[in-house]
Amino acid sequence: MPKLNENFLKLEKNYLFINIAKKINAFKQANPDADIIRMGIGDVTLPIAPVVVDAMKKACDEMGVKETFKGYEDSGAGYDFLKNAVSGYYKSIGADISPEEIRINDGAKSDCGNIVDIFGDDNIILVTDPAYPVYVDSNLMSGRKVIYADSNEENGFAGMPDYDVHADIIYLCSPNNPTGSVYTREQLAEWIDYAKKNNAVIIYDSAYEAFITDPDIPRSIFCVDGAKEVAIEMCSLSKTAGFTGMRCGYTVIPDALKVTASDGTEVSVSQLWGRRQGSKFNGVSYPVQRGAEAVFTEEGLKQIHENIAYYQENARIISETMSELGVKFTGGINSPYIWFKCPCGMGSWEFFDTMLEKIAVVGTPGAGFGKNGEGWFRLTAFGDRQRTIEAMERFRKLLGELMK
Amino acid sequence: MPKLNENFLKLEKNYLFINIAKKINAFKQANPDADIIRMGIGDVTLPIAPVVVDAMKKACDEMGVKETFKGYEDSGAGYDFLKNAVSGYYKSIGADISPEEIRINDGAKSDCGNIVDIFGDDNIILVTDPAYPVYVDSNLMSGRKVIYADSNEENGFAGMPDYDVHADIIYLCSPNNPTGSVYTREQLAEWIDYAKKNNAVIIYDSAYEAFITDPDIPRSIFCVDGAKEVAIEMCSLSKTAGFTGMRCGYTVIPDALKVTASDGTEVSVSQLWGRRQGSKFNGVSYPVQRGAEAVFTEEGLKQIHENIAYYQENARIISETMSELGVKFTGGINSPYIWFKCPCGMGSWEFFDTMLEKIAVVGTPGAGFGKNGEGWFRLTAFGDRQRTIEAMERFRKLLGELMK
Repeated sequence: MPKLNENFLKLEKNYLFINIAKKINAFKQANPDADIIRMGIGDVTLPIAPVVVDAMKKACDEMGVKETFKGYEDSGAGYDFLKNAVSGYYKSIGADISPEEIRINDGAKSDCGNIVDIFGDDNIILVTDPAYPVYVDSNLMSGRKVIYADSNEENGFAGMPDYDVHADIIYLCSPNNPTGSVYTREQLAEWIDYAKKNNAVIIYDSAYEAFITDPDIPRSIFCVDGAKEVAIEMCSLSKTAGFTGMRCGYTVIPDALKVTASDGTEVSVSQLWGRRQGSKFNGVSYPVQRGAEAVFTEEGLKQIHENIAYYQENARIISETMSELGVKFTGGINSPYIWFKCPCGMGSWEFFDTMLEKIAVVGTPGAGFGKNGEGWFRLTAFGDRQRTIEAMERFRKLLGELMK
Repeated sequence: MPKLNENFLKLEKNYLFINIAKKINAFKQANPDADIIRMGIGDVTLPIAPVVVDAMKKACDEMGVKETFKGYEDSGAGYDFLKNAVSGYYKSIGADISPEEIRINDGAKSDCGNIVDIFGDDNIILVTDPAYPVYVDSNLMSGRKVIYADSNEENGFAGMPDYDVHADIIYLCSPNNPTGSVYTREQLAEWIDYAKKNNAVIIYDSAYEAFITDPDIPRSIFCVDGAKEVAIEMCSLSKTAGFTGMRCGYTVIPDALKVTASDGTEVSVSQLWGRRQGSKFNGVSYPVQRGAEAVFTEEGLKQIHENIAYYQENARIISETMSELGVKFTGGINSPYIWFKCPCGMGSWEFFDTMLEKIAVVGTPGAGFGKNGEGWFRLTAFGDRQRTIEAMERFRKLLGELMK
């Protein structure tokens, strides 16, 4: 057999959420009657908006008629109708992004994981800790050096740059997964300044931007001056419009973004990424792109905002419970995640097991996101209202017992 | 800016078909009234089968109702309903593949391009020449050494192994893109033997298997003894069921396939690939998977076979024209591609330009697929019947002029 990529041996055997799924399955087998409430994986529960369903069905009908059938896209970067819609959306949130700077993808995870293919393996990667595991894993897989900026209780889980440490590629996520923290305009300006001083690129994950309610918090890094010279942004309709099972997102690479080869030639990052995708990706399903287009219509935005408001109310219920119980937390506002300190000094996985066994509520252990996550825990607001209320009642009872 | 992956500078600036699209656009601008017939990129033209459209629309409706809404898949490797359907299909073509050995993907290109991520960069890659550009490009991108087995006029464009040359990873494609040649059972057995003697893995692209009419030609490498110990197979619904704009395929990694790490531990290839995909892929759109499931029903297979028969008749018409004109070719039987020798000793790109300018017919220059493709040319049978007939009439006229 060929030699394997030995970098894989440095990874945890399973992706975090696959490990959690296994633990839940084992618990279910041992307790077949348990009424489990899932607040772990950040998956949505409300159905797709009616305008999106209609648009997709219409597109399916088009696929069944020779005259309107669609085969391969010419570019694989997305149809103009969708790139125009995304560009218009950016304009509405205060960022000037042309359709040509947008590439449609099958979700932020794929592009987050694959984008580094176009950069050399000798770049130093900077990740805030705790972080979405994909940033770290996809770089460990190619043998890259990963360093960390601490996000912790002291800085409100919004890690900032250390100018004494050099990095080439920086991953930022705001609103943050898992901590629910958000970067202010000033904090993002500092990251952009750090990136410029280090000739670094920022890979900015804005998957949760739709949950921002505070008008002063930027919903895209491109709302901040200077970002176009240093940043790539990835967003997704997964959380914005419930597309976790539909699969559609978008990546913005500004025209201004260039890298310099060792022989001095300047290469466009967008062109490099297009070359990579040209050989390894064939675009997103046409009906899905039509569904995504419908999200950005006036009626679509109205319908998805009703869903987002529902989740925001869940987040408020969870936050309120934490406040009442005196549990320290971040998030819950501008974010669908509530990130709290495990009670009684428990470790993350210890508390995961306790919650699962005592009250059959599933969350995500903070330690799964990095060392600064140890002792912390993530709950999501993406559940059903009644189940969220029920989970908080159980949580209240559990804390009462633990505090005895 | 970070250091770029300098391997990208070794690639052709654009993916082959993007270059061709640019040439066509330039021609269209110069000749706005030209009636272009496209027989270049291997894209289908018949609409999606009615049962598939119905299944997708039903799935879209499910996505719009809370009780039947689907979010993330647990595994991202495909729903059981579809893996079971693919497993059943394999049984019907004489290969015993369990659902657990199947992973659903968004088309063969993605997996063909990404699969090498799990193998070390120091493996030697063997590609038959000419070949689908993805095999070569995706390996050049990671700096791997690529060597070639000649497919040429002498061996009927069905390259065979040279036991004096060592390789670790071998790409085979049958029915072949671009040459339309097919491997016999005996030829595949020889490749399997070569792979075993070299501890190599075969990556087998069976995207065109549905076009095989000869019952003696294997439709999967797993129809041949010993393949499960050395092969990974990738297939797609793009050509089988017109899914080029829908995006769905599948990859088979047998349980028996293991690699040995430098420290002697055995690692399952399927598990390695699952780990890679767990971090960089989130599965295929649920409605698309329901559409794919419908392809494998009795009615689905009946409907797609009507489309395949239509394309096969196109292939017959093209082949017959070539035979009548005394043009040497391979393919046309067991394959939607006709691979012919350019008339008058012309080079591939020279003939591409001649066809485009003189008769406004677009094909694919053989040279775009490798050095042995120089002087050869690919036409596809995926077009409209009347347009195919019209193209052959124009071709006949062109050859008459060239022969004057």
